[in-house]
Amino acid sequence: MQIVHSIAECRAFVQAARKLGQSIGFVPTMGALHEGHLSLMRRAREDCDTVVASVFVNPTQFGPRGDLARYPRNLERDAELAESVGVDLIFAPANAEMYPEGFTTCVTQQGQAVKSLEGQFRPGHFRGVLTVCLKLFHVVTPHRAYFGRKDYQQALLVTRMVRDLDLPIQIVVCETVRGPDGLALSSRNQYLAPLARNQAKCINRGLGRARAALAKGERSAIELADLIRREIVAAGPCEIDYIAIADPETLAPVETLDKPAVALVAVRIGETRLIDNCTLEP
Amino acid sequence: MQIVHSIAECRAFVQAARKLGQSIGFVPTMGALHEGHLSLMRRAREDCDTVVASVFVNPTQFGPRGDLARYPRNLERDAELAESVGVDLIFAPANAEMYPEGFTTCVTQQGQAVKSLEGQFRPGHFRGVLTVCLKLFHVVTPHRAYFGRKDYQQALLVTRMVRDLDLPIQIVVCETVRGPDGLALSSRNQYLAPLARNQAKCINRGLGRARAALAKGERSAIELADLIRREIVAAGPCEIDYIAIADPETLAPVETLDKPAVALVAVRIGETRLIDNCTLEP
Repeated sequence: MQIVHSIAECRAFVQAARKLGQSIGFVPTMGALHEGHLSLMRRAREDCDTVVASVFVNPTQFGPRGDLARYPRNLERDAELAESVGVDLIFAPANAEMYPEGFTTCVTQQGQAVKSLEGQFRPGHFRGVLTVCLKLFHVVTPHRAYFGRKDYQQALLVTRMVRDLDLPIQIVVCETVRGPDGLALSSRNQYLAPLARNQAKCINRGLGRARAALAKGERSAIELADLIRREIVAAGPCEIDYIAIADPETLAPVETLDKPAVALVAVRIGETRLIDNCTLEP
Repeated sequence: MQIVHSIAECRAFVQAARKLGQSIGFVPTMGALHEGHLSLMRRAREDCDTVVASVFVNPTQFGPRGDLARYPRNLERDAELAESVGVDLIFAPANAEMYPEGFTTCVTQQGQAVKSLEGQFRPGHFRGVLTVCLKLFHVVTPHRAYFGRKDYQQALLVTRMVRDLDLPIQIVVCETVRGPDGLALSSRNQYLAPLARNQAKCINRGLGRARAALAKGERSAIELADLIRREIVAAGPCEIDYIAIADPETLAPVETLDKPAVALVAVRIGETRLIDNCTLEP
């Protein structure tokens, strides 16, 4: 496995692979790799001839009160993990390589799918995400790029960007990987002290309650959201940013579960913000 | 020469050329081809193995009071002209091919270079231009793309987008082509009745006055702009959107001509809006 830090080196690597007719799989990450990332890399390894992962803590997707400064960084450990699952190249650029002096271009979207949920609570977040993904797609030129379903809205918007901008890339969205206790894996879970980690299980438990109630015939989105809310509130002190039952494509609120929807949750436990989601298929 | 209307056909054509190792030159146009466009196509023909031109009157770069409806369209004539200078493929998509239902992504920029001049008088114009250019770049995947210097700000912002988003494309900016009377060629010149056409020559004459005064030692931007203004006002009734002496890169206003600048003009004569520019090199 190689590690490169410049766009030119990354481009040279993937161009050589492309000239050999190889397919390129790409897993963009902010490092702090966990089993969720590794599952994406394994999937890319299965699907593609060459696997590229990026490790870049993208500053433009953090808000002014976000956790950019304390976001965990350990390239050496990330490289070991990536190599263990067969990644061929890690692209780990510095901020100045991605955003040189005078950088002014950004990609954004309009409409409810980008403005609601994470878009509402993290203004500018998706502009940062979409812009950095587009830049990385241009550098890596993958045939397929892999995203985790845990960041449901992100995967939806990236898929939409790729479609809208006519990029010849297939976005593959892979299932959320969970710990044995059901908590969706996230680099931010590292922030959780043992008690908070125990409390955080309430999110997945709440989603499970909603799914169980749906299976038993409950069709009211308000009722389903309330089941999730009660499970979360019962677990201990926290701030709920949102609990939404939404259309899987538009993210418009759903009132009655007469077709598939998605339940999305964002909760802050102490200083740590956690998100999770699940499908609701009546 | 082939004419295709779908993204898939265009992609298939350029991918076949790329597989043969050919370089691809691209001239994006809104049709109504004139000698300015043809000079770009000839240059692409000289530089590249395969030349693609697009003909697409992009609705998203016209304002609500713009001339979208009356913009001249004649694909048959455009195709003849393009073929005569050696274009290999015309990509002429319908609106629905470029902007299908649910389209929500756009590219934009921040700062004075995008907000001033055309950006001020045509809000949203450059968002439309940059977005359609990026889409076309993704479909055509050119090695080089050719733009006319007449649309100075457009060429500047497209160049910046390509750099910021790490597109492996060289933007080639070619000199403005003028009629024998000095008027910069533009598809919108068709709108001008003979008297207005005669009046419109004042723009280039004004720019010439400024250059002559600069050569004689005038260094005040206010004085140079005033020379242009007087020439334009003397020619007949019109509305001047702007006469700017600006930094060539940032488009920030220049006060003293102690280094190269650019003079940019936008004037409405009757219903027809004309732009032009020239370098000012002390």
